[in-house]
Amino acid sequence: MNPELIGTLDQTIVLLQQHREDELRALLAELHPADLAELLQELEEEQRAAVVRLLAGPTAAEAIAELELPEQAAIVTQLAPEQAKAILDEMSADDVADLLAELEPEESGALLQLMTREDATDVRELMGFPEDTAGGIMTTEFVAIHAHCTVQEAIDELRRLAPSAETAYYVYVVDVRERLVGVLSLRELIVAPPDTVIQSIMRTNVVSVHVGEDQEEVARIVQKYNLLAVPVVDDQQILRGIVTVDDVIDVLEEEATEDIYRAGGVSEAEQELDLEGSIWPAIGSRLPWLLGLLFLSLVSGKVIEHFTPLMDRVTALAIFITTMAGGAGNAATQALTVVVRGLATGEMEGEQVWRVVWREARIGLVIGLVCGVVLGLTAMLWNGSPWIGLIVGLSITINLMLAKAAGSLVPVIIQRIGLDPAVASGPFIATITDTTSMLVYFSIATLILRAVL
Amino acid sequence: MNPELIGTLDQTIVLLQQHREDELRALLAELHPADLAELLQELEEEQRAAVVRLLAGPTAAEAIAELELPEQAAIVTQLAPEQAKAILDEMSADDVADLLAELEPEESGALLQLMTREDATDVRELMGFPEDTAGGIMTTEFVAIHAHCTVQEAIDELRRLAPSAETAYYVYVVDVRERLVGVLSLRELIVAPPDTVIQSIMRTNVVSVHVGEDQEEVARIVQKYNLLAVPVVDDQQILRGIVTVDDVIDVLEEEATEDIYRAGGVSEAEQELDLEGSIWPAIGSRLPWLLGLLFLSLVSGKVIEHFTPLMDRVTALAIFITTMAGGAGNAATQALTVVVRGLATGEMEGEQVWRVVWREARIGLVIGLVCGVVLGLTAMLWNGSPWIGLIVGLSITINLMLAKAAGSLVPVIIQRIGLDPAVASGPFIATITDTTSMLVYFSIATLILRAVL
Repeated sequence: MNPELIGTLDQTIVLLQQHREDELRALLAELHPADLAELLQELEEEQRAAVVRLLAGPTAAEAIAELELPEQAAIVTQLAPEQAKAILDEMSADDVADLLAELEPEESGALLQLMTREDATDVRELMGFPEDTAGGIMTTEFVAIHAHCTVQEAIDELRRLAPSAETAYYVYVVDVRERLVGVLSLRELIVAPPDTVIQSIMRTNVVSVHVGEDQEEVARIVQKYNLLAVPVVDDQQILRGIVTVDDVIDVLEEEATEDIYRAGGVSEAEQELDLEGSIWPAIGSRLPWLLGLLFLSLVSGKVIEHFTPLMDRVTALAIFITTMAGGAGNAATQALTVVVRGLATGEMEGEQVWRVVWREARIGLVIGLVCGVVLGLTAMLWNGSPWIGLIVGLSITINLMLAKAAGSLVPVIIQRIGLDPAVASGPFIATITDTTSMLVYFSIATLILRAVL
Repeated sequence: MNPELIGTLDQTIVLLQQHREDELRALLAELHPADLAELLQELEEEQRAAVVRLLAGPTAAEAIAELELPEQAAIVTQLAPEQAKAILDEMSADDVADLLAELEPEESGALLQLMTREDATDVRELMGFPEDTAGGIMTTEFVAIHAHCTVQEAIDELRRLAPSAETAYYVYVVDVRERLVGVLSLRELIVAPPDTVIQSIMRTNVVSVHVGEDQEEVARIVQKYNLLAVPVVDDQQILRGIVTVDDVIDVLEEEATEDIYRAGGVSEAEQELDLEGSIWPAIGSRLPWLLGLLFLSLVSGKVIEHFTPLMDRVTALAIFITTMAGGAGNAATQALTVVVRGLATGEMEGEQVWRVVWREARIGLVIGLVCGVVLGLTAMLWNGSPWIGLIVGLSITINLMLAKAAGSLVPVIIQRIGLDPAVASGPFIATITDTTSMLVYFSIATLILRAVL
């Protein structure tokens, strides 16, 4: 929160307590809806309801649409019906659909009853699409005109739709069966003579997406073609809605958080959680995973157990267990990070991935050799035994090479079998390399010590 | 690459070999510049130069601007001067500035000579701003009008600027000293009567950023206020440029990659590297870090060495070393991931962070207790000794609690001392918890075994 907004927040609370409602209304009218939303978030539940009651429908609608869905739901369900209606009427259909999906069926049913039949139909239709598809994130508020109209008619249509079409940076052109056939930017419209027929100036190679397209793919398309909105069509090429760039930014951020969470071994479900809410959902999401990894790590314990007779004779071997396992885990995590991100952003595709895996293997060879020599010498000086130095050095070299290869190969293999490569997280790969590093370390120790002892 | 584009690529190569240039030109004219860029990327250097020579200036400029900077530089430096001029004239000033910054001074100087003096001045000015600031990512192509103009005059100005102002979704309003005083969207302009004075319909509370503002902050502002572009002003409030939403998307993606790389212990410098290029820069960026962590992990080795007499007597203790260290590392990485991402997206700020740290500590307590009981029982069954079970269970509980607390506290502390919390990566925190987990494990073992042996 910026300092100015904190000042406004303090003033708001004072004015609320003193019931100076006209002054409060004037103060809040100055705010951008996004700032108003930030302010609402900081208020207690009762204060928040009092503030929303003071706001005009359009302002309240815009501010509420900026809030997180659980907060939106909490506010709207507390309002008097006529006030809820005033706000829902002003919200865009996709925002209403997202909000109603948060509510119990009887609550959302009651709110739908308040809306005009046309709006309610739009909202019901949007609620029917899975939330992570183009249909789930699109809005039905767009400007569409027929190809045989003139520029002046298009401008008149824009004027007619003006209040609700905040999303009108493109005008879409449809044929008599409402199929998408072209597009015009507002700039193209504004600079054309008024009596021009749309068909003669529209662009016909329109980039569009199908209602069932995955939201991440929709975002990639908007990003690739630098669009401000992308039209969404159904199987019959009929224009059903548009996805605007502000929603695309939210999708990209959501996907980035999802990838970051997975890389850190946190379920993407936790993204939806209130950071200050109950701890139990977070525990439910993290515990099985952490417990699973603990059991998986017992495999490396089993390897160590197998070699305890050896450690009984050469106790110095135990000293380097964490260095061996930790180093392999870190090297694997680095390679994994580069490959998973490359696959996620689409920078790596097709045969390119194998070249990247091969590249990681060569990086692993060089890094392994350098670290092996340095750590081997260190171990020798520490322990005084050249054999321990040789065991540590050789094991580090082989472990880091294997770790780089595993870190880059595992996500590629996961993707080839049809899963999201992001499920291969740092903690997962580190637990796997715990076992391989113990196997390598103690096997090399056995071979070398058998030769010299 | 989609299948259709692969077909076009194959056709392109055939037409090039058979010197059927007119057919090739017709084929390429069908493509969107973003697709054309993808196609150029797949061609050999010579083929690429031949294709660029065939393209019209505006098409070539748009396609080249979509490529990565090193590829742009490779193409432009190979062109004949008159062709380079045709392309640079069509590129937007910010794209030219980015491209020239990639070249050697004499090369960029020669290209600047080719441009009109006005364009060259714009480009030189943009090259003067640090690349990760608003000034570094803004374009100087925007539409600005004076407040006393009419709507019709604004539309005429738009018509005049039309060819190069691809970014005209807002019209900015300035006073006689070129200071930003208002804004109008194209939609507002299009629906207003032509003789309306701009001043009477413009919005005056314009969100703007300073030329020196960090690019991530610029992106957050565009995202928060759902803007399509944000105006950039200098110390005197004079309008200097605009940052458009497509550049904001690139910034957000770059920052997400940076955060993901840091979380995985990869330097953000590697993001700029060609995944198929030389391995040495990647080695230079990863090796010091990996080697540093290996040395840091020797501290945990030192702890183990201190307790080797104990392990000599109770060899079963060695079996659980990797489980103990790995479990703590994984638990810490989870907490770290949630906190670092929360700080990066601005979801967590001010006093809120302490509530989140406290929340992680409670999550750690519950998860630690459950994992401790389960792993303790498992260890007891495995080893047959209830004392080993107690040692493992108690150590897991304490280690996971400490790990969650450390994982959430470390990034907060790093931020408080003024650094980017993302420098606390999974591998770093895991290496730290290696040592604490060994200390906890062997201390508990010493206490319990002293009591019973």
